[in-house]
Amino acid sequence: MGTTPYLRLDVAVLDRNIAAMADLAAAAHLSLRPHAKTHKSLEIARRQLATGAVGLTVATIGEAEVFADVCDDLFIAYPLWVDAADAHRLRALAERTRVLVGCDSFDAARKLARLPVEVAVEIDSGHHRSGVQPAQAGELAARITELGLRVRGVFTFPGHSYSPATRATAADDEAAALAVATNSLAAALVPARLVSGGSTPSAGFSRAGVLNELRPGVSVFGDAQQVELGTIGFDKVALTVAATVVSHAGGRVITNAGSKALGADRAPWATGYGRVPECPDARVVALSEHHSTIEWPAALPALGSQVLLVPNHVCTAVNLADTYVLSDGGTWPVAARGRNS
Amino acid sequence: MGTTPYLRLDVAVLDRNIAAMADLAAAAHLSLRPHAKTHKSLEIARRQLATGAVGLTVATIGEAEVFADVCDDLFIAYPLWVDAADAHRLRALAERTRVLVGCDSFDAARKLARLPVEVAVEIDSGHHRSGVQPAQAGELAARITELGLRVRGVFTFPGHSYSPATRATAADDEAAALAVATNSLAAALVPARLVSGGSTPSAGFSRAGVLNELRPGVSVFGDAQQVELGTIGFDKVALTVAATVVSHAGGRVITNAGSKALGADRAPWATGYGRVPECPDARVVALSEHHSTIEWPAALPALGSQVLLVPNHVCTAVNLADTYVLSDGGTWPVAARGRNS
Repeated sequence: MGTTPYLRLDVAVLDRNIAAMADLAAAAHLSLRPHAKTHKSLEIARRQLATGAVGLTVATIGEAEVFADVCDDLFIAYPLWVDAADAHRLRALAERTRVLVGCDSFDAARKLARLPVEVAVEIDSGHHRSGVQPAQAGELAARITELGLRVRGVFTFPGHSYSPATRATAADDEAAALAVATNSLAAALVPARLVSGGSTPSAGFSRAGVLNELRPGVSVFGDAQQVELGTIGFDKVALTVAATVVSHAGGRVITNAGSKALGADRAPWATGYGRVPECPDARVVALSEHHSTIEWPAALPALGSQVLLVPNHVCTAVNLADTYVLSDGGTWPVAARGRNS
Repeated sequence: MGTTPYLRLDVAVLDRNIAAMADLAAAAHLSLRPHAKTHKSLEIARRQLATGAVGLTVATIGEAEVFADVCDDLFIAYPLWVDAADAHRLRALAERTRVLVGCDSFDAARKLARLPVEVAVEIDSGHHRSGVQPAQAGELAARITELGLRVRGVFTFPGHSYSPATRATAADDEAAALAVATNSLAAALVPARLVSGGSTPSAGFSRAGVLNELRPGVSVFGDAQQVELGTIGFDKVALTVAATVVSHAGGRVITNAGSKALGADRAPWATGYGRVPECPDARVVALSEHHSTIEWPAALPALGSQVLLVPNHVCTAVNLADTYVLSDGGTWPVAARGRNS
């Protein structure tokens, strides 16, 4: 129990989700390196590592600094631009843990030269964010090697899996792109020991032996996006935002969990700003900073009652809070909250 | 300077914005009670109070607890549902500062009875979030008075001013609704000493003498929503997110300021996920947690260079960070960050 709104974590569901992803990766003969940006929690990281994760993925040096307390093999899966202060931090980090850093340009690689890190070349497999085209990976890898840096392999994020239209095909795109990239590295005489991909929506799809590592994040908790994409049902949602009904204005349910608790993420295909497991037909039709407005096609929950809301995107919801309130009454800190750099 | 991404605050623009809103309120013979949820900063609150604000507006008890350090007249402009723990906190708060609390139901008012607070009845003036219909305000006010609570008056948030189609008319709706509500209270023999409204987009429109208090929040900083609504130009934007260009993938600018730095807010009428003052034709076409993807119809800024991005909604962007980095190199804490309850 806490004062609403707060993050409520069902630890039994969390443990089942962690085990399920470990089993999925093992069955597919893939190493598992969960993305810790989702949970930002040392306790959850320890559970992932205890069930077979080979290491952790993080997004920033700041997150790596936090997770080096519990993990000795970190992948900053991001095309870092490293200034002098960052270089100092990476040197200190490398004394605590093995460090792999993403890269998609020779200019960025030059800033990494002489640092005690390995490099993975980022590939664009269809999400069209960062990353080089797959066929260009070998040339970049060779140039990075000439800087004296060790290239461990290639990675991509098939982020276009976050769409009902391309969820099923994103894994195919990912495998095809990584196969081209791997061959490109081989042609440049840089062996790709690491071939890393994965996202929660695409994790369950086959990649026909191309990848050797998966980096899912959201699967540890689940969220409304995953429910609406069809990846999971509400029974696999471990993290909710506990909210109090504060008004029935307009015949709707107004709770005190707004965008500062749920996050404002809303994909074009989302049906609202979150979901309500106890009333699956309910829709969060509007979100202010401290209000969610819910159309609730059933008897309204009483003023003052608590409801559990599922955020659309759990990574950004978690980053708004300092504490998880566990289903057994304990708490865990969101240790890496706000570690954006 | 800081490590990107970080909140960059131009204090000269901030001071001009504070003075301009004070002047606007004074010219309209309105008391000014700025909403501190926008900035969550004691330093900024002091500046607002020093230039004539009669008090501060906050959204939660937690924010009130922070701002009671610098202000002795706080309005929690929210329909609180007060449980036993909240009641304890409100009693402690009332020993430090005058406390006014919003209310839109008799059930919620009963939870406030016997607490040392005054009550303002919330009215729906067209935003259709919380609040009673204006003509019902008197009946609710009379019933609240019978509980032994003192009703100070009525308030509304004309949130439909956040739309190009209704920005200009929202102030008319607000004034009409508050006039009806004021008359409704008078008919119920409850004088409305407070008639409070206001939002940043509607602040500059006339209300023909109905209101006596304005509660704008965003005006202190400005943001991309205000620019796109036509409330301000980029010259009045005091708060930006400093970001580093990390990739040119796809011929676009990818920076390290994503939704965990800018916030994910995007109104249906927004042109993207933020704006770029140095390139007004640029559009932030996609946002991940740690990437913004910017279509930049000019020579791209070099890899590693810094760009200043204007978040769509500054209130949620500020709530993601712990520190303001001032244009003169100092820092201020975001003291009330995460105070959601």
